[in-house]
Amino acid sequence: MQVAMIQDEILALEELEPVYLDRAFYFGDGVYEVVRSYDGKIFALEEHLQRFANSLAAVGITGVNIEQIRRRVCKAFDAAGIANAHIYFHVTRGSAPRKHIWDADLKPNFFLTITEIAYNKKEHTEGIAVSTHPDWRWKRCDIKSLNLLPNVLARQDAARKGCAEAILVDEAGLITEGAGSAFFAIFKRKLQTAPLTANILPSITRKYTIKAGENIGLGLIEKTLTPQQASSADELFIAVTTKNIVPVVKFDGKPVGNGKPGKYTKLLAQEFLSFTR
Amino acid sequence: MQVAMIQDEILALEELEPVYLDRAFYFGDGVYEVVRSYDGKIFALEEHLQRFANSLAAVGITGVNIEQIRRRVCKAFDAAGIANAHIYFHVTRGSAPRKHIWDADLKPNFFLTITEIAYNKKEHTEGIAVSTHPDWRWKRCDIKSLNLLPNVLARQDAARKGCAEAILVDEAGLITEGAGSAFFAIFKRKLQTAPLTANILPSITRKYTIKAGENIGLGLIEKTLTPQQASSADELFIAVTTKNIVPVVKFDGKPVGNGKPGKYTKLLAQEFLSFTR
Repeated sequence: MQVAMIQDEILALEELEPVYLDRAFYFGDGVYEVVRSYDGKIFALEEHLQRFANSLAAVGITGVNIEQIRRRVCKAFDAAGIANAHIYFHVTRGSAPRKHIWDADLKPNFFLTITEIAYNKKEHTEGIAVSTHPDWRWKRCDIKSLNLLPNVLARQDAARKGCAEAILVDEAGLITEGAGSAFFAIFKRKLQTAPLTANILPSITRKYTIKAGENIGLGLIEKTLTPQQASSADELFIAVTTKNIVPVVKFDGKPVGNGKPGKYTKLLAQEFLSFTR
Repeated sequence: MQVAMIQDEILALEELEPVYLDRAFYFGDGVYEVVRSYDGKIFALEEHLQRFANSLAAVGITGVNIEQIRRRVCKAFDAAGIANAHIYFHVTRGSAPRKHIWDADLKPNFFLTITEIAYNKKEHTEGIAVSTHPDWRWKRCDIKSLNLLPNVLARQDAARKGCAEAILVDEAGLITEGAGSAFFAIFKRKLQTAPLTANILPSITRKYTIKAGENIGLGLIEKTLTPQQASSADELFIAVTTKNIVPVVKFDGKPVGNGKPGKYTKLLAQEFLSFTR
């Protein structure tokens, strides 16, 4: 008899609930998005859906109707009635007995949660500390996949050091991005961040941050930084959907600039918020 | 109201079954093993449990009693009563609302399946074709984690090309290993395979294959190969728990040696089976 076992309970394999056959469970075989709303309005949903479609295509998950995803997101958002909502959704390749290769007729699974975003005033007004960690992620970080163990380990390492984010450093000694955020430096009146390659998530918050920079008259350099270069920047910050722009005031234990949130960072955050209204 | 949505069904977040909060589901945050039995006897269970303990430690999953895992595996194996069993088990960090950082009091989840191994006589007697694919995996492949999307994609690419396995090639142009197997070449009377680094799974079948090589008088070179070097080998084969040693007779479309399973590969497979009795 083919069997399954959950904790100490043995059951026949056929009795297993379908969720236990989800390929997310065995392989992390799915892609996800995190979207948020500001005061009852979902921000940049079209861009997120476009990126989601790109992720699906990149891993070969077919048969997903993006219009249907949009309708589901909006329906769930209406049902939740949360003004500042954290909207997570993923699509996995489907449920089937574990084997690497997938069958063409597999039906993708959709899953979503909506929770409330707790605004962390302290992080925004006082800034955060970050620490570096080796970038152990796979080589296609342009795909927003469910293979997130390296991100989890880097974040936990940062937390252990009293830091709110891990800044990932590749084998060449260059900063790619944060474990869950885009990473920016400001030198004089120029914004600097890594260019979009296969190792960088095409962050939507990054895009709007660059636009905010243009609006307030900052130049842009798309070039990777070493940790040494980053720690000598005038200002540092991270950019992420759930929190938009958060000043970084400590980098691997050393104060950034005067150790306080930078003036351009504050202006950028203000300008960013104007996009969300 | 915080909500969840599964396919088209909206429910309150609190109504979600705990399995939907498993961190395997969001992050692939767990480690696994595949063990098999030969004629009613589990092969190399101690080594698999030791490697499992190493994987758990490497990702910081604590509170798992390896003796309990052994008891569960043996209990399920007895219940299944399958002589040639494929035993899969994983432990995930636990179930909790999605956030990267984990809480210290999280309880790990155990999951296991036992199915029957179908012996593929054709693969063993006629050999298989393999094709190369970029190694997109993370940088800690010495850990047997649930982050397997790159392996899935490489395997599917191989299948599309009519191949049974993908041989992964890193950015330096060197073969690391198969997407789900160790990879060996034979030159004259020498076995060659990649050394055990952070990019290679410490395969138990690899270990026994090397021992089989010693027993039949083959030398050993632990050195990475380029695809070009591999395709000029006298013999090639893959080694994997579920199938032990499988001859490779075609490499990226080109016949290996005379295009038939090699004589040392056959001797190795015979010798290997003697360990399993």
